[in-house]
Amino acid sequence: MKIDIHGHVSAPDSLYAYKAGLLSHRGAHGRGSAGVTDETLLEALYSPNSSFGDQSHMKHLDEAGIDIQLISPRPYQMMHSEQAHLVEWFTEETNNVIAGVCRIEPDRFRGVAGLPQSMETNPRRWAGELRRSVEELGFGGALLNSDPYEGTMQPPNLGDPFWYPIWETLIELDVPVMIHAAGCRPPARESYSLHFIQEETLSVVSLLSSKVFDDFPDLKIIVSHGGGAVPYQRGRFERDAIRQGTTYTELMRKLYYDTCLYNRDSIELLVGAVGVDRCLFGSEKPGTGSVVNPQTGRWIDDIHLLIEDIDWLDDQQRDQLFEGNARALFRI
Amino acid sequence: MKIDIHGHVSAPDSLYAYKAGLLSHRGAHGRGSAGVTDETLLEALYSPNSSFGDQSHMKHLDEAGIDIQLISPRPYQMMHSEQAHLVEWFTEETNNVIAGVCRIEPDRFRGVAGLPQSMETNPRRWAGELRRSVEELGFGGALLNSDPYEGTMQPPNLGDPFWYPIWETLIELDVPVMIHAAGCRPPARESYSLHFIQEETLSVVSLLSSKVFDDFPDLKIIVSHGGGAVPYQRGRFERDAIRQGTTYTELMRKLYYDTCLYNRDSIELLVGAVGVDRCLFGSEKPGTGSVVNPQTGRWIDDIHLLIEDIDWLDDQQRDQLFEGNARALFRI
Amino acid sequence: MKIDIHGHVSAPDSLYAYKAGLLSHRGAHGRGSAGVTDETLLEALYSPNSSFGDQSHMKHLDEAGIDIQLISPRPYQMMHSEQAHLVEWFTEETNNVIAGVCRIEPDRFRGVAGLPQSMETNPRRWAGELRRSVEELGFGGALLNSDPYEGTMQPPNLGDPFWYPIWETLIELDVPVMIHAAGCRPPARESYSLHFIQEETLSVVSLLSSKVFDDFPDLKIIVSHGGGAVPYQRGRFERDAIRQGTTYTELMRKLYYDTCLYNRDSIELLVGAVGVDRCLFGSEKPGTGSVVNPQTGRWIDDIHLLIEDIDWLDDQQRDQLFEGNARALFRI
Amino acid sequence: MKIDIHGHVSAPDSLYAYKAGLLSHRGAHGRGSAGVTDETLLEALYSPNSSFGDQSHMKHLDEAGIDIQLISPRPYQMMHSEQAHLVEWFTEETNNVIAGVCRIEPDRFRGVAGLPQSMETNPRRWAGELRRSVEELGFGGALLNSDPYEGTMQPPNLGDPFWYPIWETLIELDVPVMIHAAGCRPPARESYSLHFIQEETLSVVSLLSSKVFDDFPDLKIIVSHGGGAVPYQRGRFERDAIRQGTTYTELMRKLYYDTCLYNRDSIELLVGAVGVDRCLFGSEKPGTGSVVNPQTGRWIDDIHLLIEDIDWLDDQQRDQLFEGNARALFRI
Amino acid sequence: MKIDIHGHVSAPDSLYAYKAGLLSHRGAHGRGSAGVTDETLLEALYSPNSSFGDQSHMKHLDEAGIDIQLISPRPYQMMHSEQAHLVEWFTEETNNVIAGVCRIEPDRFRGVAGLPQSMETNPRRWAGELRRSVEELGFGGALLNSDPYEGTMQPPNLGDPFWYPIWETLIELDVPVMIHAAGCRPPARESYSLHFIQEETLSVVSLLSSKVFDDFPDLKIIVSHGGGAVPYQRGRFERDAIRQGTTYTELMRKLYYDTCLYNRDSIELLVGAVGVDRCLFGSEKPGTGSVVNPQTGRWIDDIHLLIEDIDWLDDQQRDQLFEGNARALFRI
Amino acid sequence: MKIDIHGHVSAPDSLYAYKAGLLSHRGAHGRGSAGVTDETLLEALYSPNSSFGDQSHMKHLDEAGIDIQLISPRPYQMMHSEQAHLVEWFTEETNNVIAGVCRIEPDRFRGVAGLPQSMETNPRRWAGELRRSVEELGFGGALLNSDPYEGTMQPPNLGDPFWYPIWETLIELDVPVMIHAAGCRPPARESYSLHFIQEETLSVVSLLSSKVFDDFPDLKIIVSHGGGAVPYQRGRFERDAIRQGTTYTELMRKLYYDTCLYNRDSIELLVGAVGVDRCLFGSEKPGTGSVVNPQTGRWIDDIHLLIEDIDWLDDQQRDQLFEGNARALFRI
Repeated sequence: MKIDIHGHVSAPDSLYAYKAGLLSHRGAHGRGSAGVTDETLLEALYSPNSSFGDQSHMKHLDEAGIDIQLISPRPYQMMHSEQAHLVEWFTEETNNVIAGVCRIEPDRFRGVAGLPQSMETNPRRWAGELRRSVEELGFGGALLNSDPYEGTMQPPNLGDPFWYPIWETLIELDVPVMIHAAGCRPPARESYSLHFIQEETLSVVSLLSSKVFDDFPDLKIIVSHGGGAVPYQRGRFERDAIRQGTTYTELMRKLYYDTCLYNRDSIELLVGAVGVDRCLFGSEKPGTGSVVNPQTGRWIDDIHLLIEDIDWLDDQQRDQLFEGNARALFRI
Repeated sequence: MKIDIHGHVSAPDSLYAYKAGLLSHRGAHGRGSAGVTDETLLEALYSPNSSFGDQSHMKHLDEAGIDIQLISPRPYQMMHSEQAHLVEWFTEETNNVIAGVCRIEPDRFRGVAGLPQSMETNPRRWAGELRRSVEELGFGGALLNSDPYEGTMQPPNLGDPFWYPIWETLIELDVPVMIHAAGCRPPARESYSLHFIQEETLSVVSLLSSKVFDDFPDLKIIVSHGGGAVPYQRGRFERDAIRQGTTYTELMRKLYYDTCLYNRDSIELLVGAVGVDRCLFGSEKPGTGSVVNPQTGRWIDDIHLLIEDIDWLDDQQRDQLFEGNARALFRI
Repeated sequence: MKIDIHGHVSAPDSLYAYKAGLLSHRGAHGRGSAGVTDETLLEALYSPNSSFGDQSHMKHLDEAGIDIQLISPRPYQMMHSEQAHLVEWFTEETNNVIAGVCRIEPDRFRGVAGLPQSMETNPRRWAGELRRSVEELGFGGALLNSDPYEGTMQPPNLGDPFWYPIWETLIELDVPVMIHAAGCRPPARESYSLHFIQEETLSVVSLLSSKVFDDFPDLKIIVSHGGGAVPYQRGRFERDAIRQGTTYTELMRKLYYDTCLYNRDSIELLVGAVGVDRCLFGSEKPGTGSVVNPQTGRWIDDIHLLIEDIDWLDDQQRDQLFEGNARALFRI
Repeated sequence: MKIDIHGHVSAPDSLYAYKAGLLSHRGAHGRGSAGVTDETLLEALYSPNSSFGDQSHMKHLDEAGIDIQLISPRPYQMMHSEQAHLVEWFTEETNNVIAGVCRIEPDRFRGVAGLPQSMETNPRRWAGELRRSVEELGFGGALLNSDPYEGTMQPPNLGDPFWYPIWETLIELDVPVMIHAAGCRPPARESYSLHFIQEETLSVVSLLSSKVFDDFPDLKIIVSHGGGAVPYQRGRFERDAIRQGTTYTELMRKLYYDTCLYNRDSIELLVGAVGVDRCLFGSEKPGTGSVVNPQTGRWIDDIHLLIEDIDWLDDQQRDQLFEGNARALFRI
Repeated sequence: MKIDIHGHVSAPDSLYAYKAGLLSHRGAHGRGSAGVTDETLLEALYSPNSSFGDQSHMKHLDEAGIDIQLISPRPYQMMHSEQAHLVEWFTEETNNVIAGVCRIEPDRFRGVAGLPQSMETNPRRWAGELRRSVEELGFGGALLNSDPYEGTMQPPNLGDPFWYPIWETLIELDVPVMIHAAGCRPPARESYSLHFIQEETLSVVSLLSSKVFDDFPDLKIIVSHGGGAVPYQRGRFERDAIRQGTTYTELMRKLYYDTCLYNRDSIELLVGAVGVDRCLFGSEKPGTGSVVNPQTGRWIDDIHLLIEDIDWLDDQQRDQLFEGNARALFRI
Repeated sequence: MKIDIHGHVSAPDSLYAYKAGLLSHRGAHGRGSAGVTDETLLEALYSPNSSFGDQSHMKHLDEAGIDIQLISPRPYQMMHSEQAHLVEWFTEETNNVIAGVCRIEPDRFRGVAGLPQSMETNPRRWAGELRRSVEELGFGGALLNSDPYEGTMQPPNLGDPFWYPIWETLIELDVPVMIHAAGCRPPARESYSLHFIQEETLSVVSLLSSKVFDDFPDLKIIVSHGGGAVPYQRGRFERDAIRQGTTYTELMRKLYYDTCLYNRDSIELLVGAVGVDRCLFGSEKPGTGSVVNPQTGRWIDDIHLLIEDIDWLDDQQRDQLFEGNARALFRI
């Protein structure tokens, strides 16, 4: 059985037309709604999509044998750096769309919430939507963007007490969180996709040099895309770990990582560095990797095949990666 | 016969989902397209729309007896203050959608172009899209936003030489232009709708105290929404006009004004102040005024009824307002 | 009998030389004083003034048959955006000059206070001078500038709780307030005179969409210059009013408006829109309109003649406009 | 005979009321004029002035035996940091007032020009008013403000090539210039009066470490108020002078200094340090020092008495200080 | 034989005292010099250093069997974001110190230049020091900092034409360049050490999506620390490569990478991904990794041991890594 | 006997290499230490120094007959405008170096503390190091920099309550403080050396127009370099003093001044103006004045010779200047 912890919702156009409207009238037309219906939700799931190799979301999952997928908002659409009320309205609508998808395909999907991370408000307020998503919508966790400014200013690092209200609420609700940046606005030197990696690198380094896990030993944080640069560059941080009487590998095991890397050697490095029990299968399917590699004939995001190709994993380890760790963390 | 010079396109959701995508990926996904089809274009014209009193665009026109409507982009969606390449892509897509509507309903619609007014580029570049719209898409004119910063910085006033490349191109192509602001971004003290009025007031005052009409005597500029505050406040500017040996009324007649005001007395004041030959029927239908006034049972934007109610206009004058002036200016 | 509620003081040169000194020494010479005497006050009232058609303030009033005039500071001189202590000193001196004029011509003039609206201080502090003016100087009301930054930054709109200390003090003292902007500093797209209109438009729209009159039902606010653009553009705001189960005309009647418009049709539109009981005669005489229109032979600011020309007003209504409403509001 | 090279004009109130108007209407009323008459000019010269110990300008000069005074604008009023067109208008009016004073009292006064030093324009443009003042108004020199930003930003130091157009014009017209700052605006740590001293210190140090006198060996620059801090602190700069094979005293003799210091020992230090031939009598009378010191019974600005008290000066040297150097520099 | 291409100079204290002086007097004491002598140079090389495990630079090299080391400035000391003249002076002094070390230990060391990368000047000027270092000091290449603002502003990415003068000069001199960031100033979310990684990631992605190698096919660029995050995350960029008809692996082979990673698996991943011919041995010894790992008993920066441990490399490949590639690139 | 109250420490290079490191790694290497030893301390005192005429610190003192010197940090090195934690670490190291010098030459030196004046922290925190220096290191006083922003922003003037925590602690510890600025950063119009003078001028004027000495009558403040411009320009401030019923000379006597002026006439003016009891011998030796004047053959900073040259001082007065006043203030 395969549980994919890193999926993003395929939503009807009207959700994004709603967003475009918010960014244009700036609230002058009131809150309004995205106006989705079960019909448009189903169409978004089952219609071929030109962005994803002209294949539907459901067909992608079926082909890969993904039984359950945790779906969250498309991160690059989350517009955290816009005005607070617009962010809140759009986040709620997006989470509602995800809840709708989970309602009409209850065996296939579990919700992971977006949070209304406007820096005009604060984490305590963001936690309200986290609570609503878990308690009312039945979601299993949330995404957390380490850079709500989306590249325009410098936020507090994840090790900063600024973020404690989120940690507290996660502990209280007993759900995990995935670190995943959103957009990256001008002026910027990087695309949103590269921004994800840079933010993940910063997040791991900041969390592991902070007191967050001393203060919240039960906190479950999953870092997307295999932890940015850190597993590959981890020796760089060994000196400080030695000074503290530990190893950086030991410190890295405080976190979880998804396997959303598109090369077998990278996944091998990750699993080898942090251990099978710290890795979870994540494919981000369909998404940026939903294109066929002409050399291999595989979809780039056929991450399940890469894992299956790793010959030094035994069956139990593969099960942990594909299912067991996800069941434990998300209590599925 | 009625020609409505102030209409905005009713476009498929996918145009605005395209826009939302641009604002999120910031070009990282490439230019792409709005992906409209004749089918979705027709659906957008003929389906009831909850924003417009649950009645379709075409039904609104039919009920009001509007034979021809000049349609331009929805101004509040134009996002001129975003990055130049995004503005250019979205403006082109929007003009293409308008061209599509004119193609499938050729008797009903004429196009009026949006311009890619990013302040990162310049009016000479904007004029390229004006030229394409008129020469390739067959449009009859364009909108001009006097505040491309959308409230975030101070643009040069319309009387400034900054704008001359636009005037030059309009003269060369022999088409008129309508002054119409777009969005209004935070921090702002006003909604985009009020921003329209404030910008129109500024535009009239600036143009009439400049040398623009000395340098471009054949320029045809139409000010939307009846000229902002100026016709009502015109006495305030009389002193300077007297100093120049003229009257402000005489100066005001260098411009044209649409009747997009929602009260009979206001339209009367406008027509009385500037003359029938300077006014053109404009309804902005369907749009912000497409709601029924419970006291009158009329749609608020039934501007044709207000004009018909003015008892001191004779038939020839009404024809000028409804048809003749528009035919002359837009060469229909 | 005619009571003109919109007059500005004609002060001796030494008041403005005092101001020039403050702006130069920035307080290094101490507070000092404007050094006016009864002699210079009388000279300022009775000498022909080249800015006002070479005719004295008193002669203007006599010719127009204005029996009583409410006089306030010349708004464009009020320099609210300068340093707080300079604003306070100059405002006090100006109010003292107004009090002096009222003292030496007690039958003709009533004082209306300027307020020291520096944004370095706050409305609660400004209210101190309001109280002094009413309680010690015997003034009948005050001017309120909705933009103390004078165009350089964005102030809170008048609907914001920021302004509540002013409303509270007005209620306590039982006097009305007139909305009237002051200067407009570089960089700006508009002269101070046009800034008045833009600010009045913003003020009306903001107040009527706020809870101010719910919280202060007895508040008396007069908007200068006939309410900016709003009476002419009022249909634009009808949709929101309908949503609230009312009409925008009804909402507009929460405010008062002066007739300081220089065209009969504009005054007619105003009175027709908001009702005779909501309008007060105001001429701003002598002032920017004190120039003779060669076509009519009238002073532009002969607003009393425009009112007399309106044939559909009966005598009682004219009396209300010229006298009754002013007596009621200002308790004269 | 005594020639006082450091006097400032006593102008009618209407000049400063004119300035206050400019700062309020920002040019919206046009250029206008200060409206001075011979009558008001004479009144300003011959009336007792409360700022100057209740004694008139002329009486002050008579009492001190000042035969000829060079008069320039009151520096703290010059508002160089305001908008360029306002600065130009006010500077021209001020220079015209000075010319008027020189015309009605030709034996007593010689003009020294203010320059329209707005940083929105440039020194080449400022030089136009210098030329007009010398060629058309017959002035003998000019003031130069080393800080046209009046404390709000950092101007180029006087040694910078930025200033060369002024030096070139001075050479061409063969007149000297006096360094004298103007106002000092918020936020500032110093009054305008202390700003004078700080700017003079900066000016001397900058000029003497620059190539200005290599490039303009005939340039005549007088530093007001005895050169700021430099004569007293001159040893501090000796090290660099020694490196260049000279002494700082030698370098300092490239400049001229007025005696506008209010203590005998300071004047002695100045004359001792730079030599009699580099010093000129300047009293700034009447001005900030026009108050009687109760301990001495003298006016503080009785600088002529301080010079007379210096016992080691012989008659020829006193004549140089009082008359000869001024005649040579100003070609009187 | 082992050639270590990534070493940094161990300089006498007086070089850094010189730097501290520059940052304090800001040039007021003149250019001066670092005052190094052969004696202090030797002491810096041969004395135990507490920052490097109490072992000297030379001992570290001897122990690791490093025969030749390319030495460049300590990057974190380079202060590129300071004033241009200070940067230039300090860079020249540092390069001179490196030249001194190469002179007294000619068999052991080769110089790699620092460049005076102040953004107040420009790359054409920086290239002057590159030329001096190669032509006069005999250096074999240079470091290039992709972020001369050191974290305080956003520089043009390396793919931007801004950098072309550097590429042109490298081609002309026929030397390679190493990408290596310098400091990272407040406010920053990362230490300088992590900044290196983030900048390397940005540099690789920017260069490979630019036209730099089309325009300079012979350019030799080495990315420090194994290319930041890119080899590990390379699948993420595959989609765009496929669109261009290539693979990202192929694109990555346009660059060279050093092995300065502190884990065998990371080096394996790197070499496996880009090929042996694109990798060069680099140890940064002694430096941040000069601490003994208590678990292994090895120095963390014993990178030669990690390479020796890779069992799938044959002798020829190891020679390429340790010597051959370096000899080819640096023409040793 | 001579006590020189104005000396600065001659520290080993390693202190400044430590500083250079802090400014480069920004704390990433931890606090560390300057690593001075008795050996390097002695070398710094007894070795000829090329900055000081190739003569050692001790030789300078011996030659001048300075028996005791109060030594403080080199002000221009104090970097108060850097990040707070770096300022604190460097200040502590510097004070520790001073304490080391006093320990190994106890008869010659007394410590004067530097304070960690980062504006990111506050005076109450700075006072902690003052307390440590006096109570634990046995120092006799401290330096106070009136511009911790080092020219980059505007600090509160010394008369502001902002500084009261320093005054309170000085009173409590019963030690004096010396006003002495530190660096002056770009953009600046002045070198740090001229900045000292400008800041001293501002400090004296601000303190004497404040209530500081009303609130702290026992406060002992010494102004370095003879009080900037004030003694020479003091007449300028007389008018305000007269208004307060005093003289400016009387006010100036609330402060103390050192004699660190490099001309006899300047010292004479100072002592004459403020009185012998308010002046203390200070030479700043060795330092910026440690160069031989070829005309006199004296070191420029041979201030003791200048004092000895003043013929109107009697022996008792000279003793006060050289010894008595210092003993009283510093309780030596």
